[in-house]
Amino acid sequence: MDYRSLISSPTLLIDEKICRANIKKMADKASLHQMELIPHWKTAQSRTIGNWAKDYGIRQITASSIRQAAYMSNQGWENIHIAFPFNVREIPTLNKLTESQSISVQIVNTFTISKLAEELKNPIGFMIEIDAGYGRTGVHMSDFGKIDEILRIAAGSDKLNFIGFYIHPGHTYYMLDKEGIYHETRQALAMLKSKYQAQFESLKTRIGDTPGCAVANDFGDIDEMGPGNFVFYDLMQADLKSCEKSDIAVALAVPVVDIIPERNEILVHGGGVHLAKDFLQRENGQKIFGEVVLLNEKGWEIPSETSIVKSISQEHGLIKASKELLEQVKVGDLIGILPVHSCMTADAMGAYLSLTGEWVDHAEKKSF
Amino acid sequence: MDYRSLISSPTLLIDEKICRANIKKMADKASLHQMELIPHWKTAQSRTIGNWAKDYGIRQITASSIRQAAYMSNQGWENIHIAFPFNVREIPTLNKLTESQSISVQIVNTFTISKLAEELKNPIGFMIEIDAGYGRTGVHMSDFGKIDEILRIAAGSDKLNFIGFYIHPGHTYYMLDKEGIYHETRQALAMLKSKYQAQFESLKTRIGDTPGCAVANDFGDIDEMGPGNFVFYDLMQADLKSCEKSDIAVALAVPVVDIIPERNEILVHGGGVHLAKDFLQRENGQKIFGEVVLLNEKGWEIPSETSIVKSISQEHGLIKASKELLEQVKVGDLIGILPVHSCMTADAMGAYLSLTGEWVDHAEKKSF
Repeated sequence: MDYRSLISSPTLLIDEKICRANIKKMADKASLHQMELIPHWKTAQSRTIGNWAKDYGIRQITASSIRQAAYMSNQGWENIHIAFPFNVREIPTLNKLTESQSISVQIVNTFTISKLAEELKNPIGFMIEIDAGYGRTGVHMSDFGKIDEILRIAAGSDKLNFIGFYIHPGHTYYMLDKEGIYHETRQALAMLKSKYQAQFESLKTRIGDTPGCAVANDFGDIDEMGPGNFVFYDLMQADLKSCEKSDIAVALAVPVVDIIPERNEILVHGGGVHLAKDFLQRENGQKIFGEVVLLNEKGWEIPSETSIVKSISQEHGLIKASKELLEQVKVGDLIGILPVHSCMTADAMGAYLSLTGEWVDHAEKKSF
Repeated sequence: MDYRSLISSPTLLIDEKICRANIKKMADKASLHQMELIPHWKTAQSRTIGNWAKDYGIRQITASSIRQAAYMSNQGWENIHIAFPFNVREIPTLNKLTESQSISVQIVNTFTISKLAEELKNPIGFMIEIDAGYGRTGVHMSDFGKIDEILRIAAGSDKLNFIGFYIHPGHTYYMLDKEGIYHETRQALAMLKSKYQAQFESLKTRIGDTPGCAVANDFGDIDEMGPGNFVFYDLMQADLKSCEKSDIAVALAVPVVDIIPERNEILVHGGGVHLAKDFLQRENGQKIFGEVVLLNEKGWEIPSETSIVKSISQEHGLIKASKELLEQVKVGDLIGILPVHSCMTADAMGAYLSLTGEWVDHAEKKSF
């Protein structure tokens, strides 16, 4: 059966073969560096894709909200880590979740750990998130006063088990010198490990960003890696040299609704509510909201001449088309769009269609 | 009951009073100009809010996809217009929908009208979308050859009823001279009306954009207005002077998860998957993804000193906070965020919470 016959409106395609190859490659890399791969499931948000990951030795995953963790719970994961500064308003939900699933949370301040110490009903693990220069969130790497205070409060509770330190060096997305950033991150984690290991024998350190994990070759004594986006990759990661475009495992299938040959443009049903609004910007100011691939019976191929999504609104996508594409495409056809940011596209779509025509689940489960 | 007690994670609040006032004001304006207001329901996407609109004489609505039209169907609307170049792959869905709901569609090329003529099972209306300079979609205003051909094909079918011409002058979002743009749009529609009215006696012309409908005072002989965003408004519209910030009818309630006083920053659970990623950019390069409001028992108030969402990632929102805000807020509190683009925020959230604690539906119905 040709999966295309199932599609009448914008639909997110997943190529299982590419996705499995991405997971295997990162798992092999983690192995090579004696690290455990604990992928961030904010990208895939899928139980089925979780089962694919188990084939490559993945035993634990990470979520970015308690909602995601709840969706992925009771599927055989040894632990689910919620890698977002814990929100104390969610303690009742956490107490419910931990009745049947091992959960760990992320801590960045003393108030939150105190509240957890008071109100937890079941044991959980926790990691302290460290800010090693990204400046989004985390305890500053040299704020030992705060780290000690968090650990002191936790020690007073029989329900809080310290796992270790977590760094998301998100600046690898913006800076070319990824090995340089990793050098700092490695040093920060090594310093914290040597300082606290006497007290916490099995302390682990974890790093979590796709560009770094994909590119770096020296992880020092970091124990765990937690990238997320690598499961699918996207145009942003291809731009960052984390992957090739042929490693991108998802593409949005969109119906062609008009062709404007005098402007070399193709109008598709596929806009911000499908792709999300992340874009790449070229030096000449050109914004790119996605890149066209040609769909065939077995999946998609990257055409020799590039065509881009040059603008989007809520439901409209306007493609600046190559001559080749304009010659091939008719109104009513489907074309594919490689997303700029696959995590956001998957979240917007809330479901995947496999190339063999089966629906694959996503936590946001929109009707399909 | 304080609605805030129901909130543990990011939740989109709706102020029914503000929303009703926005609808009433636009309905009054339409009346004053002897026009019919046929609002674009891509913003609200809600049956309940549709019922509010009926209190102000609204009898027809517009959708931007067949999915939205299906969600809003059989709720007593005289007609639902799908204001998106019709996608021929949806003809089977359209045939089903039109068994019980009057529907009209938008046409921009001859291929689509031919396919409809061949495959329609029930009568529908259609409007021809005209491009009067925005350059996104539509038949060029002077391409009478194409317009005539569309009308000729439709005349051969007993299921295709021509309603009239539709223009979305989306460039009112980018250009200061909205009256100037409207002057061109008015002229285009007046020209088309006088050219085709002899042939189609009850021909209507419609214009559909919030900035223009909110600001313009001369609609010439245009019959209908179809703005969408005005139901909620947002920071982008306030920037365009379509509304005041106090007219914004929705705010995202977000939990505070950390406070970084040395950087004047507040970290909230509320990111791109909640607000969407639209932003305003100030002359100094500062990006604004939302603006903080203070929540109280009855709703929200705009603080005297502005605090903005300066960056977002998938789940994180980082607020550059005023002194006043830093003094008032603690970890675990809720604050409100006025969205930059309310249509996208509502679509991302898929549900609303009223200020009296009732859930209000949205077509994307995420679990709540």
